[in-house]
Amino acid sequence: MPKATIIGLGMIGTSIGMALKKAKLPSYKVTGHDLNDQTARRSRSRGAVDKLEFQLAQSVKDADIVIIATPVLAIRDVLESISSALPETAVVTDTGSTKQQVLKWAEELLPRRVGFVGGHPMAGVEKPGPEDAKPDMFADSTYCLMPSRGASARDVQTVVDVVETLGATPLFIHPQEHDSFVAAVSHVPIALSTALIAATTGSPSWHEMGRLAAGGYRDVTRLASGDPTMNRDICLTNGTEIVGWLDRIIEQLQEFKGQVQEQNKEVLTRLFETVNEERLKWVEGILPRPGARPAVEIPGVVEQTSRTLFGEAVMIRMKRLLDFAENPPKKQGKDGDGPSTEKLK
Amino acid sequence: MPKATIIGLGMIGTSIGMALKKAKLPSYKVTGHDLNDQTARRSRSRGAVDKLEFQLAQSVKDADIVIIATPVLAIRDVLESISSALPETAVVTDTGSTKQQVLKWAEELLPRRVGFVGGHPMAGVEKPGPEDAKPDMFADSTYCLMPSRGASARDVQTVVDVVETLGATPLFIHPQEHDSFVAAVSHVPIALSTALIAATTGSPSWHEMGRLAAGGYRDVTRLASGDPTMNRDICLTNGTEIVGWLDRIIEQLQEFKGQVQEQNKEVLTRLFETVNEERLKWVEGILPRPGARPAVEIPGVVEQTSRTLFGEAVMIRMKRLLDFAENPPKKQGKDGDGPSTEKLK
Repeated sequence: MPKATIIGLGMIGTSIGMALKKAKLPSYKVTGHDLNDQTARRSRSRGAVDKLEFQLAQSVKDADIVIIATPVLAIRDVLESISSALPETAVVTDTGSTKQQVLKWAEELLPRRVGFVGGHPMAGVEKPGPEDAKPDMFADSTYCLMPSRGASARDVQTVVDVVETLGATPLFIHPQEHDSFVAAVSHVPIALSTALIAATTGSPSWHEMGRLAAGGYRDVTRLASGDPTMNRDICLTNGTEIVGWLDRIIEQLQEFKGQVQEQNKEVLTRLFETVNEERLKWVEGILPRPGARPAVEIPGVVEQTSRTLFGEAVMIRMKRLLDFAENPPKKQGKDGDGPSTEKLK
Repeated sequence: MPKATIIGLGMIGTSIGMALKKAKLPSYKVTGHDLNDQTARRSRSRGAVDKLEFQLAQSVKDADIVIIATPVLAIRDVLESISSALPETAVVTDTGSTKQQVLKWAEELLPRRVGFVGGHPMAGVEKPGPEDAKPDMFADSTYCLMPSRGASARDVQTVVDVVETLGATPLFIHPQEHDSFVAAVSHVPIALSTALIAATTGSPSWHEMGRLAAGGYRDVTRLASGDPTMNRDICLTNGTEIVGWLDRIIEQLQEFKGQVQEQNKEVLTRLFETVNEERLKWVEGILPRPGARPAVEIPGVVEQTSRTLFGEAVMIRMKRLLDFAENPPKKQGKDGDGPSTEKLK
C-alpha cells in the first residue's frame, strides 16, 4: 500500500487526499500535515487523511510520495524542513501555480537521491479551505508535470499514478513554457479581476453601482476572491512572465478604447465576432463531449498498453524535455509570442 | 387581460414572454415579433407567446404594453416603425443595455401621447437564442427603470407590474447614472473578457496554451461569448462612459504591473487582501439570504400599502429624476468619481 504524505491541507491538498482515500487500486495510506492545526483537523474530518502528523519533518518519514500543496513561497520552507527526513526512495511533488522557481528550490534543497516532479493541477475553486474540497476536483482536468533533472522514470511513474488516481490527465510540459502559459491564462486573469474590483469598489458611488452588478461582474471578478497569499506568491515567483502578458493586455485595451472613441462600427463588429468564435472553439475543444476522448493528448497514455511501455514513453518525452532545458531556444522579442512561449517540438 | 407585445424574441424577449405566460394574475395575452422568422418560431415553441405577428407595425396595434428586447441600435428602427401604429393608451418599454441614447430616440420618435419607460434587467446569460431563455431568468434580480419625461404614473405602473411579474425588483435610477454604472460593472468587464480572448487566442502558442486554460479563464472570458451585435451596440451608444472607465482600469493595471516588477510583497499582499474582502462584501450584500429582504431598496414598494399610494411615490421619485435631468450637477474631473456618476440625492 503506497504511503502518501500531503503537506498543506487546504482546498487542493484536501481534495487530493479525498481522491486518494476513495481510490481502491492502489489503496493509499495518507498522512497529512498543515501549519494550522484547525485546518488540519477540518481536513481530517472531510476524510482526506488517515492520520495527522503535527511535526512537519516527522510527517514524511515513511512516505513513498510527498505532495506539497501550499502557496508557492511556502514550498521553499517545506522543502528545507523535510529534506533530511525524507526516505531515500521517496519522490516529492507539489501543486504550486508557478514552476521554474520551485524546480530551482528542489534542485538546491533536496538530497540528490530524492526525485522531484513538479506538478500543477489545472482545476480548483477560489475558496481556499478544506470545506470546499471534493474528491472529483481534478476529474477530467489537465495536470501539468515537470520532472526535475534528477527524477527517475520510477519517480515520474509514482506521480503519474497519483495524477491518474485523481482522474486527471498528465501533461508533460517545459517549466518555462508552463510559466508563460499560466501567466496568460491564469495569472493575468487574476490581475484583471483584481483591477476591476479595485476600480469599482474604490469608487465613491460603489454602494449604488454595486446594485447593478450582476452575473457578468460576478464571473469576471471571481478570481479576486482567491487566496491572497497564493495570488501574491504567484506574482512574486512569475513576475517576468506576468509583466510580459500584462503589457499585451494593456495594449489590447488601449486599441479597444481607440475603436470605441472613434465609434468604429466595422472594426468593433469584427472584433466581437472574432472573440465570440475563438472562445467557442476553445469551449468546444476543451469541454469533454459525451463519448469523446479528452481533448488533451498525453504521450503514450492511449497508445501504450502496458505500464512498462508507458514508463518508456515518459522517459523518451523526459529526455526531450531535458534536451530542451539544456539547449533552450532563444527568447523572442516583443513581435514574437511574448515571454518564453516557444514551442516544444 | 393586459395585452403585451414583445419585439425581439431572443434570450431576453423569450424569457420575458415565458414569465408573462406563466403568470396567473394578471394573465397576459402575448404577441411576439422577430426580424428572423425562425427565431420567432423557436420562441413560440418555448411557450413565450400566444401568437406571432410577422409584420412589425401590425404586432403593436392592440398592445397595452410594448416590450422592445432587441440590441440597442435596433431599438431606434423599431421605435420608428411602430410609432404610428401604437394605440393611444399603450406604454412602450425596452430592455437595452444603455439608456441615455434610447430615451432620446423615444422622445424624438414616439407620439406625444405614448409614454416610454426605459428598462434594463440586470440578469441574463451570454447566449442570445430562445433556447437559453427561462421564465425565472429575472427572478430576484434588479430591473432598472427610467421613465421618459412624458410617461404618466399609469405608464410607470404598467411597466412595474410587468417587472414584478418577472419576479424582479424595480430600481428607479437616472439614465446618466445608469449608463456610467453599467459601463463600470457590465461594459468594461466585456472589454476585459474581449481583450483576454484576443491576446491569448492570437498567440502562436494558443493551441498548446489553451490546454492549460481552466475555470478561471472560462469565467473571466465568459462575456466574450456575448452576442457580437449587442456588444457592439453597447460600445456605439455608451462610448464616453466606457472610455472613462477603461482609463481607470488601465491605470489600475499599470499600477499593478509596477508592483509586480518591484516585487513589492507588502503592497501586493494588501491589494489581494483588500479585493478579496471587498468582493466578499459585495457577494454577501447582493446574494439573497434566506428570510432577508432583497438588498435593493425600491422607493415605496415596502412602505406603501395601496397601488394608488405607490403610484404617488413613483411620481415623487420621477419628479426628482426630472428635476435632476433639467439641472444636472456639473461633471467631475478625473479626481472625482469618473464620468457622470454623481449621486441622486
